Amino acid sequence: MKVQYQLLHKDKETGARRGTITTNYGTFDTPMFMPVGTKATVKMLTPEELKDCAAGIILANTYHCWLRPGEDIIAKAGGLHKFMNYDGPILTDSGGYQVFSLAKPKDITEDGVYFKSHIDGQKLFLTPEKSIEIQNKLDSDIAMSFDECPPASASHEYMQKSIERTLRWAARGKAVHKNENQSLFGIIQGGPYEDLRKLSAIETVKMDFDGYSVGGVANDGEPKEDMYNAIRYSTPYIPEDKTRYLMGVGEPLDIIEGVILGIDLFDCVIPTRLARHGNAFTKDGKINLKNAKYKEDFTPIEDDCDCYACKNYTKAYIRHLVTSNEALGGRLLSIHNIRFLIKLTEDIRKAIEEDRLLSFKEQFKTRYEKIGKNR
Amino acid sequence: MKVQYQLLHKDKETGARRGTITTNYGTFDTPMFMPVGTKATVKMLTPEELKDCAAGIILANTYHCWLRPGEDIIAKAGGLHKFMNYDGPILTDSGGYQVFSLAKPKDITEDGVYFKSHIDGQKLFLTPEKSIEIQNKLDSDIAMSFDECPPASASHEYMQKSIERTLRWAARGKAVHKNENQSLFGIIQGGPYEDLRKLSAIETVKMDFDGYSVGGVANDGEPKEDMYNAIRYSTPYIPEDKTRYLMGVGEPLDIIEGVILGIDLFDCVIPTRLARHGNAFTKDGKINLKNAKYKEDFTPIEDDCDCYACKNYTKAYIRHLVTSNEALGGRLLSIHNIRFLIKLTEDIRKAIEEDRLLSFKEQFKTRYEKIGKNR
Repeated sequence: MKVQYQLLHKDKETGARRGTITTNYGTFDTPMFMPVGTKATVKMLTPEELKDCAAGIILANTYHCWLRPGEDIIAKAGGLHKFMNYDGPILTDSGGYQVFSLAKPKDITEDGVYFKSHIDGQKLFLTPEKSIEIQNKLDSDIAMSFDECPPASASHEYMQKSIERTLRWAARGKAVHKNENQSLFGIIQGGPYEDLRKLSAIETVKMDFDGYSVGGVANDGEPKEDMYNAIRYSTPYIPEDKTRYLMGVGEPLDIIEGVILGIDLFDCVIPTRLARHGNAFTKDGKINLKNAKYKEDFTPIEDDCDCYACKNYTKAYIRHLVTSNEALGGRLLSIHNIRFLIKLTEDIRKAIEEDRLLSFKEQFKTRYEKIGKNR
Repeated sequence: MKVQYQLLHKDKETGARRGTITTNYGTFDTPMFMPVGTKATVKMLTPEELKDCAAGIILANTYHCWLRPGEDIIAKAGGLHKFMNYDGPILTDSGGYQVFSLAKPKDITEDGVYFKSHIDGQKLFLTPEKSIEIQNKLDSDIAMSFDECPPASASHEYMQKSIERTLRWAARGKAVHKNENQSLFGIIQGGPYEDLRKLSAIETVKMDFDGYSVGGVANDGEPKEDMYNAIRYSTPYIPEDKTRYLMGVGEPLDIIEGVILGIDLFDCVIPTRLARHGNAFTKDGKINLKNAKYKEDFTPIEDDCDCYACKNYTKAYIRHLVTSNEALGGRLLSIHNIRFLIKLTEDIRKAIEEDRLLSFKEQFKTRYEKIGKNR
């Protein structure tokens, strides 16, 4: 089946959406944060642990699965769900984001993109058709269109050419999309330019995808307001009965802002990446467990957190694991950080239901920013 | 309380012992394999996963806990059990084995051993009293005496002096052992020399420890028959109502042979170390999951294994994780390998109960050695 978005309630002040998405592998609530399983594994964790975090859906990277182990092996295994033993919804990206970070500008042609494998330097070529073909074989619940991901700093002229090509690529991908059990989402690009976001959104929606994402906002270093504007310029053109997915965004305040601007779905590597560096999200900002002040801190990361790490381990123990390079440390922090972002979306959902998302945002922000981001 | 060994049955042909050990944290069956949690964590795994493997007891290293995070922090946490959230029995070694691998011969004095920290090169001094004091604070269920661990190749003359000193060290450690909730085991040394093993065993047993271990057998490269002889020369002098622990041994065939020679308890890093290199125990010998032949092998590591890894994942998926350096791969292999050795002790127990340990050994060995150790 194709995914079905159901709108349950809109926050009276902001219009933020509380809904559900129904997939082949069950229904989950939105807004939702989606943990990233780059190489068909959310780093260090099992499917059971992700479910304990109340993950509604996870993301796997087409580029990485294509290179290793290869989409044919995953297809022979019976698709991604069976290969990685995950019986919940899975979304695959198009590979575009990874490929463009490896390709040089001259390697981007109308036909597709030439680039070198990050594993062995082998020269590879990815096209819209190939991306869809790989995703069909991976058999994810949601596939993404192959798009160009120019930097937000690209000129208006370049960006216009880019989104026009991305529209042609979207049409080419849609034409070859064969998997009846898989939905296909279109991607809205256009950088910081209002007219281009509008153009990209309207033309993408005309192609009638099963859902839509706002892309090109997770580039490093751009001002937050640019990100929020890119969303603001894109979402009004997306039909209300379709999912809106903001790609690559996982900072707590950005999730709240994204929801206010109409987003349903988020993904980001940040919870697992922070974890591997000893960092934990808390409602009082991020903390680094390597800090000596946690040496004899026999309290959990957060007293009121319901995650496995907080229910069973102290900061002193996790600090010991992290400073001793013991993998269990990163594993416990990954669980906590993923649960933190998913719990945040639960709190957001409740706030929408009760029409108080703006006051929730103010409360959360005041506390989160009080001490500073890196204690 | 002090640990209590109860003998339930002896294999009629070999005299191998089937029993139980009762501790502050419950009773477990013997023979038993003990996973190693070097730095107060069995690498990558949670206590729940160890219990799913049916681990009866785990080992933590005194040397590592002393250096990081320090025994005082663990004591403040309420001891090792609370610090690492493990509510089953824990044994701590004495630190001797690690220290002797870092010390030069001239640094070994009657008083104790000078050596340099493997972390920061700091000069440190460990004595029998200090080892016991640290272990008292760690509050493990079983502490080990501080012993010298000379190489098996040491001369008879050196070995004799060494075991005499180890006996004096054992007496000094016992004299300062204060933790009433902790048992203290003595260690029998003597290398490959029958007379010295006998001397060490008789004199150690005279001190009336709560249990005994056979040490100095896990050195690399010595012939298997030397290891078996060292056990053979030691166990006859250990009272029947006390636990017999063979330190550092975890190869399946050595576990079976050790049990035949009267051993109850084993420990070794081998299951987790093999796992980190992509290796798995199977009843047909060890296999390396990196091998290309597992690329499309959608069967578990072992069809009839009841571990979490075998019940949920294929060799093809684990191979993908291992070749992609994804931590979940080592985690799944650690679970499988630990479960494999503990299941082996379960099979051994059943064979003892049915007086067929020798035929079990022949069957196991024939199959295990058939294909070769590193397929």
